[in-house]
Amino acid sequence: MAVSSPDLKAFLVSTPFFGGLSDASLDLFISMLVERRFDTGARVVSEGEPGRSMYIVRAGQLGVSKRGKSGREIRMAVLGPGDFFGEMTLIEMQNRSATVIAESPIALYELTAQNLYAYYKADIHAYVMVMLNMNRELCRRLRRADSRIAEMADDSPE
Amino acid sequence: MAVSSPDLKAFLVSTPFFGGLSDASLDLFISMLVERRFDTGARVVSEGEPGRSMYIVRAGQLGVSKRGKSGREIRMAVLGPGDFFGEMTLIEMQNRSATVIAESPIALYELTAQNLYAYYKADIHAYVMVMLNMNRELCRRLRRADSRIAEMADDSPE
Repeated sequence: MAVSSPDLKAFLVSTPFFGGLSDASLDLFISMLVERRFDTGARVVSEGEPGRSMYIVRAGQLGVSKRGKSGREIRMAVLGPGDFFGEMTLIEMQNRSATVIAESPIALYELTAQNLYAYYKADIHAYVMVMLNMNRELCRRLRRADSRIAEMADDSPE
Repeated sequence: MAVSSPDLKAFLVSTPFFGGLSDASLDLFISMLVERRFDTGARVVSEGEPGRSMYIVRAGQLGVSKRGKSGREIRMAVLGPGDFFGEMTLIEMQNRSATVIAESPIALYELTAQNLYAYYKADIHAYVMVMLNMNRELCRRLRRADSRIAEMADDSPE
C-alpha cells in the first residue's frame, strides 16, 4: 500500500533517519515508502537471510535477537516508533545480522536499496543528509554495543 | 608535516576508508592529510576527551581500550595499517569513546572535520563514496560487536 498522510512529514522529520530533510526532499521519499503491517509474533526479518530492504517503525514494538552458538536466542534490542532497522544489508550486501519480531501489532515503512539509489540520483544533497543520519545512528549503536561489551568483560573474571 | 609520496595513492585506495576513489579525488584528500608519528606507548586519543580529528593508520600497531566501571582497562580491538579510527567524534560531535595507544612506533594520517567539510563542498560524489565506506565499516564493527555480545551472553548463566 502506498503512503500518504497529512501528519506523515512531521513524523518522518522527527525520526533519526529523516531528520534535517526539507519538505521537498521528504516528498520524494514519501513517494517511495511502502507501508507494511504485521500482527504480534510476525517475523519481519530473519538472521542469516538475504535482504534488500530497510524499515522505519511507524507504530508498535519489535524485538531484535541473535542466536547464540548454543542455539539460545539472545535479546539484543527493542525497537519502537521512529527507529529504523535492516539498513546494514543495504550498505554491506550481507545477510540479515539479526531476527526482528513484532511484539505488538506494528506498522512499518519499507525502503529498498533501489529506492535509495534513485534518491542518490535525484537529490544528492538530501541523500548525503540521510547517509550522515544513518552514520550517526550506527555510531550511537556502536557506542552502546562497545559499552555493553566493556561492562560484560568488566563483570567477568580476569 | 604535509604528505606526498609516490606509493601513497596505492596505499590509500587499498584502505576501507578511501576504497573506490578516483585518482583525482584522492589528490584532493592527499593535499589535506597530515602525517603524525608516535613512539610505542604514546596515547593518541583518550576516552572521554573531545576530538575533532580522525586517523588512518599507515604503519605500526595500536590498541583500543575502554575503561570498565571497576576502573579496569578492557581491550576492545587492535588496529594496523589501513585501519581508521576516531571518525565517531566527527559524525556525532561526542567525546572519544575509547583510548587508543601506540603498541609500536606508528605513522598515522590525520583528517579533521573541517577537511571533510571542505571535501563535501569540493567533490560531493567522492564525499558520498567516503561516507558509504565509513558506513560500511561501522556496519562491520557493529556486526562484530553484536556477535561478541551474543557470545558473551550465551556463555553466561540465564
